[in-house]
Amino acid sequence: MAEYADIAEITGTATLPAEHYGIRAEILGKLMAQGLPVPRGFAVSKAAVHQLALGTVPDLGPLKEVLKQGALYSVRRSPEQRNWGGPRAMLNIGMCDRTRDIMAREMGLERANDLYSRFIRSYSQKVARLDEDDLEELVEVEFTNRGRDYGRLIDALLEFYEDELDEPFPQDPVTQMQQVLRAVARMWEGTTARILRQARGAPIDAGLGLIVQDMVAGTGSGECGVGSAQFTALATGVNGTHGRYISESQGHDSVTGRGGEMFLGRDVRGPSMEDVAPEVFAQLQDLTAQAREILRDEVLIQFSVQDGKVWVLDARPAERSGRAEVEIAVQLAKDGLQSKEAALLSVTPGSLTEMLHRHIDPKAKYKVLTQGIAASPGANCGKVVFSAEAAQASAARDENCILVRSETLPEDIRGMHSAQGILTARGGITSHAAVIARGLGLPCIVGASDIDIDLRRKRFALPDGRKFSEGDTITLDGATGEVIAGAPDLIEPDLSGAFNTLLDWTDEFRKLGVRANADTPSDARLAQTFRVDGIGLCRTEHMFFEPGRLTAMREMIFADQDQDRQAALDRLLPMQRADFVELFETMVGLPVCIRLLDPPLHEFLPQSPQEIRSLAEAMDLPLAKVLGRAEDLKQYNPMLGLRGVRLGLTVPGIYDMQARAIFEAAAQVQQKFGTQIKPEIMIPLVSANKEVEIVKGRVDVVASEVQMATGQRLEYSVGVMVETPRAALKAGQIAQYAEFLSFGTNDLTQMAYGLSRDDAGRFMRAYVNRGVFAEDPFHSIDEDGVGELLEIAVSRAKEARGDIGLGLCGEHGGDPASVAFCHRLGLEYVSCSPYRAPVARLSAAQTAILDRD
Amino acid sequence: MAEYADIAEITGTATLPAEHYGIRAEILGKLMAQGLPVPRGFAVSKAAVHQLALGTVPDLGPLKEVLKQGALYSVRRSPEQRNWGGPRAMLNIGMCDRTRDIMAREMGLERANDLYSRFIRSYSQKVARLDEDDLEELVEVEFTNRGRDYGRLIDALLEFYEDELDEPFPQDPVTQMQQVLRAVARMWEGTTARILRQARGAPIDAGLGLIVQDMVAGTGSGECGVGSAQFTALATGVNGTHGRYISESQGHDSVTGRGGEMFLGRDVRGPSMEDVAPEVFAQLQDLTAQAREILRDEVLIQFSVQDGKVWVLDARPAERSGRAEVEIAVQLAKDGLQSKEAALLSVTPGSLTEMLHRHIDPKAKYKVLTQGIAASPGANCGKVVFSAEAAQASAARDENCILVRSETLPEDIRGMHSAQGILTARGGITSHAAVIARGLGLPCIVGASDIDIDLRRKRFALPDGRKFSEGDTITLDGATGEVIAGAPDLIEPDLSGAFNTLLDWTDEFRKLGVRANADTPSDARLAQTFRVDGIGLCRTEHMFFEPGRLTAMREMIFADQDQDRQAALDRLLPMQRADFVELFETMVGLPVCIRLLDPPLHEFLPQSPQEIRSLAEAMDLPLAKVLGRAEDLKQYNPMLGLRGVRLGLTVPGIYDMQARAIFEAAAQVQQKFGTQIKPEIMIPLVSANKEVEIVKGRVDVVASEVQMATGQRLEYSVGVMVETPRAALKAGQIAQYAEFLSFGTNDLTQMAYGLSRDDAGRFMRAYVNRGVFAEDPFHSIDEDGVGELLEIAVSRAKEARGDIGLGLCGEHGGDPASVAFCHRLGLEYVSCSPYRAPVARLSAAQTAILDRD
Repeated sequence: MAEYADIAEITGTATLPAEHYGIRAEILGKLMAQGLPVPRGFAVSKAAVHQLALGTVPDLGPLKEVLKQGALYSVRRSPEQRNWGGPRAMLNIGMCDRTRDIMAREMGLERANDLYSRFIRSYSQKVARLDEDDLEELVEVEFTNRGRDYGRLIDALLEFYEDELDEPFPQDPVTQMQQVLRAVARMWEGTTARILRQARGAPIDAGLGLIVQDMVAGTGSGECGVGSAQFTALATGVNGTHGRYISESQGHDSVTGRGGEMFLGRDVRGPSMEDVAPEVFAQLQDLTAQAREILRDEVLIQFSVQDGKVWVLDARPAERSGRAEVEIAVQLAKDGLQSKEAALLSVTPGSLTEMLHRHIDPKAKYKVLTQGIAASPGANCGKVVFSAEAAQASAARDENCILVRSETLPEDIRGMHSAQGILTARGGITSHAAVIARGLGLPCIVGASDIDIDLRRKRFALPDGRKFSEGDTITLDGATGEVIAGAPDLIEPDLSGAFNTLLDWTDEFRKLGVRANADTPSDARLAQTFRVDGIGLCRTEHMFFEPGRLTAMREMIFADQDQDRQAALDRLLPMQRADFVELFETMVGLPVCIRLLDPPLHEFLPQSPQEIRSLAEAMDLPLAKVLGRAEDLKQYNPMLGLRGVRLGLTVPGIYDMQARAIFEAAAQVQQKFGTQIKPEIMIPLVSANKEVEIVKGRVDVVASEVQMATGQRLEYSVGVMVETPRAALKAGQIAQYAEFLSFGTNDLTQMAYGLSRDDAGRFMRAYVNRGVFAEDPFHSIDEDGVGELLEIAVSRAKEARGDIGLGLCGEHGGDPASVAFCHRLGLEYVSCSPYRAPVARLSAAQTAILDRD
Repeated sequence: MAEYADIAEITGTATLPAEHYGIRAEILGKLMAQGLPVPRGFAVSKAAVHQLALGTVPDLGPLKEVLKQGALYSVRRSPEQRNWGGPRAMLNIGMCDRTRDIMAREMGLERANDLYSRFIRSYSQKVARLDEDDLEELVEVEFTNRGRDYGRLIDALLEFYEDELDEPFPQDPVTQMQQVLRAVARMWEGTTARILRQARGAPIDAGLGLIVQDMVAGTGSGECGVGSAQFTALATGVNGTHGRYISESQGHDSVTGRGGEMFLGRDVRGPSMEDVAPEVFAQLQDLTAQAREILRDEVLIQFSVQDGKVWVLDARPAERSGRAEVEIAVQLAKDGLQSKEAALLSVTPGSLTEMLHRHIDPKAKYKVLTQGIAASPGANCGKVVFSAEAAQASAARDENCILVRSETLPEDIRGMHSAQGILTARGGITSHAAVIARGLGLPCIVGASDIDIDLRRKRFALPDGRKFSEGDTITLDGATGEVIAGAPDLIEPDLSGAFNTLLDWTDEFRKLGVRANADTPSDARLAQTFRVDGIGLCRTEHMFFEPGRLTAMREMIFADQDQDRQAALDRLLPMQRADFVELFETMVGLPVCIRLLDPPLHEFLPQSPQEIRSLAEAMDLPLAKVLGRAEDLKQYNPMLGLRGVRLGLTVPGIYDMQARAIFEAAAQVQQKFGTQIKPEIMIPLVSANKEVEIVKGRVDVVASEVQMATGQRLEYSVGVMVETPRAALKAGQIAQYAEFLSFGTNDLTQMAYGLSRDDAGRFMRAYVNRGVFAEDPFHSIDEDGVGELLEIAVSRAKEARGDIGLGLCGEHGGDPASVAFCHRLGLEYVSCSPYRAPVARLSAAQTAILDRD
């Protein structure tokens, strides 16, 4: 610490590192070094501030002489990082009887007295710790009794000060400065400030530097004033003028803070600096551009104007929306102001998600009705409807609608396609509604348990008694889970060139592949627009929910006899094959990982009485028989029941059919394109290696049959979705039969915690708020618990099979922290829903860059 | 191997270890050493038999001379362990023209010829491998054409032999013996025999010794014959005479196997050895008693009688039922014939379970209707009823009944109390029916999906169309899962002195404590009859199912307002306190571990329309409100939902009330008895250490409040039920707040496998049969997967807190293999249902003894 002076003048020749003097000192030094007009200033080091807080009377060193010059000074915070906060600025230090007299000559007595009285008040309050209310009252009494006379007010304030503290107000600028510095240092190290700081993510014992800077006097015949400015549009990042300017030349009122405020750029709503003082505006633009180059970022400038000359008091990164963040990062890199790495690191991954979806204008005012679980991002408004049919009818009328249901069922899918958003009273982030909505890219809020749906009257009620009927307009914000009355302004998504450029750059750095979860050919096409590295998870069950197929599926499920089941499977085969053909064609040249049927069969069963009746008719079975069979298929805990590979082993015809469909499709597509198709076939819900051995055996048999029949050489791999803790522990054994493992961290988290995502909604928010869980483990992977299972699995699997493929598919694949974890774990890829793929690509690149550095 | 001769004479002076010569050789040597009359014999070593199988012509060594004496010999198997099986005996080796002539002088030509012809047949078939059917036909043709002339038959057989094999039947006894030995050795090493052997649990390449023994000629003027005898009752093990005897003195017919068969002891049904040849019978009793002492076990003797003298051909452990096994083990130890350790090791743990319950007479004949999941052992018969009310009505009429339901609900409990057995069509081994039935010690079969219940007609149908109506008699065998028509004979349980003696002995050896799972004071009293070391799991939720409480519980659940909820909890408090008072009084001096409320609240909700209506009345709420709230509480996967500590944190009043009830009860009982009560309070379904920290904090607060109010010093510990994989992984952190951990391996298995016990029934049998799972992991702990989680947890917990208490509570606590695993793991105790405690005690002792040795 010795080599850094306690108080150093900011000259632009010596570097003042943020580590010792705080970020503001460092930046002012850089600006000064490049010749920008920055008022004279001194940096007080973190070490000195710490000493001050401990009670040391500071040796003001070079400042001492300066303070005797009868000018005014500000003291501003200079924390190590901008967002760590700290005490607010103290202005006009050095003001005393003598200084007032000097200044009165330049600016007139009244303004000088005004400044003096304000300084006494702020010093009394912040430094001497006199009661704010008492001071307020005193001013009010004085002004009421004697009019706005600053001279008399000063006398009264000085008297009050002396009465309260038994000593006169300090007339020595050096004493004033010492006391101000000490007070600010103590504030920084006080308990409240420490807690606040911690809440902002700063270390609890973070240090603070301070800046003592000449006040720029608003005097002279030319334009004078203060303001802040940024020349980048908040929302888009491309261009624009933001900020405010208070001209002190525009009349006396301005000194008391009333009036003189104007726009920077020309504006129909009122006067602007551009009109009033165009040459000042030009200076400001020029200085901002210089600061941008020096700081290699779009900046927000704080400035003073003295007699037509602009002084730069501070420069900081410009405020920006998510979209602007991307635009700025790319533009700075293109301008050579930062490297691609720096550009990639500067973007918050969530900003990409914001760009993908419509969202509510940050400036809009609206009323939140209730909050549910944010299940699929984006915002949309529409008229409330309560049934899939009504949603389709709305679509036919070209009306936007929001489908409100207790929960959705597979037969609601067409209605969901027709809606602009989905709101359900029940369910969690993997409920049917949530999964489908994410696939469709629709805003979705689930588990909004406050809404009480009355289907008969076609309306829903809120706990406060408000009611919304079919046709009333509401808006869903799927990013926050807020249900909003009416239709606030929405901002359209815009996948600008910068978005794609940034994503292209990720590929130069990331080690981790990013695949998409895509269940249908249309999902795959969507995924392709985000240029993913393949499909990491094709959930074949979603292929069976289309109307014609659902019936065949149900007939398969209800079959009593093997031949009836086989007949139903034979009908499903060509449909599955057609899906896979389209999938392989869409993804030619990229890997496609297909998961064999996973969910409990009862998910395919008819729910409504009409559907049950129509199935009974289709199958020529008595209604009671259909109902009985449906009852038989009910499970106590479907997540933990007869599903996944257990289904594959219990009803082997299903997997045989699926394997055949995959291979026949591969053969067909590779014949057409002349490219080898290498499907990856994934076995779900494995808990014992024998399960893998058996299924792989059957798949191999089907493969050789198809090979014989088509004459096409097939290349494929068979792997395992690691979803149970036991599969993770036994990964070494499983790897003997599995060519790849893909971690299904949704289920793995459910099982490690003994917690169903669909039921967790009841208490998860309370749990996270109370810190019981540090984070929702379904959003960000629980590195400590679930993560350890992954580590165990990876190391055992690699030991057993050196070249084993390793990936992760599940919601976590789109979460930045989880992506970083996967990178460290040495996985080959993550797979997530297409809309999260951009985030995953960026996160993967960021991790790789940080890891390399 | 060199020091063991290929063929050694059994003299009684040199030991013939079973390892080299098989068990029969070793036993015959021991008997001979003690002077028992054993015919001269030779042991062929395993090594020699292996060489024979490879084709070596054996050097008969000492046997060679013996074989020239013109007598007859048998060759019998002598495997290393009795139950490994092997080729059947070959008799009368050495028979040839010359021997026949010698024997004819003693027994007459016809008998000698008969023996000769039979030997030729058996040699032709077993050694020369001629076709059995051909030989059969030849005998039939001969006898039909020429009458029963053995001389002519011999000629025909010898001719056939020579025709078929192009060589004459061997007349040289040495050649015969060499060929017999070789044939037997080859049979043992053949593929079929190897597979059979493996099925019996023998190593696939196990060796076989052989015994060559003099045939005892049934000649002389006194009593002659052959037989087997044991003087222990099969069923009880205390005394009795079993076996059969074929007297050759009783007429010529006996030589051809017809007639001469008689009882051993006096019997009203026919002649007996005791009557016909009392001195032979006395010899037999005496020899058996001697063999018992020599072999230190009750024995089954194979014997020959020659001219009134009994020869012992073989002695083996007597056959016995489970109950007899216990009786014999204890009696032998009491007689000083074996150590207590040996006695404990000799009893199969399952034998104790058999003794605890009524079971079907092994001799009974009956018809199995269908098989379900064996959920609670014991057998009972009764008339079919279909409702709890009908069961209570039956009980009122003093009629036994079997309650047949689709599944049972909490409100069925009174009906279950009234029934003699429970049969459900749905559910698994932890369904409500199964849990309650095990607690009541009632036979129970669940998941009998074949039965189709028609409640309206009050009958159930089977797939074959048979129907059983209310009032029809059926029997349940809860040990096998068999549903039986009618009422076969049942054997009553008899906890004899031997049962208790054996259990007392376990305490001298076992390291592992055995506690009982007991939910109510009556459970605790039952547990005390099995002298357990405490209560390892008191599931408090079962206390709320009694009628008066269920209503208060439901009011608590349905409460909208905090004060309504508190009012309901205030009503529950004295009831809970009374339960705990009784529990602590019953268990004074022993630890009692109480688990705070665990199950999802919806389990307490009314199910039937009447119940829902009556709750609506009790709470003065509209029916729709009650229905709606019940709907709200439904969970997708109740096992993984809002339950356990999540409930405790979400509705903290419940745990506060329970902690208060526990402490107030402890204070009351310790005041009364003057003994410190040290309740153990267990937190269920933990997945994060913060959960433990919070609940422990609240429990501590309640404890000090009660301490203040009662003036009683309270000692207690707070611990965690480790049921989630994550809790196992985080055991080190959790141990910071938990004074003990108890592994809930039921849930841990469910979560490690991702498999609900209640749903596993659909495929578990098929899975185990196909070897997908080596065993049902809910029966015997999966050491490989779940076991690793336990190992991780134990080592991390011990590292964090050296004196941490460690136990296991769950069905596995009553499974011998799992108990052994817990012993190796170094747990302090296992806890299981009271009826399984005896098995656990024995298993714990066995493991400790084996571990020590």
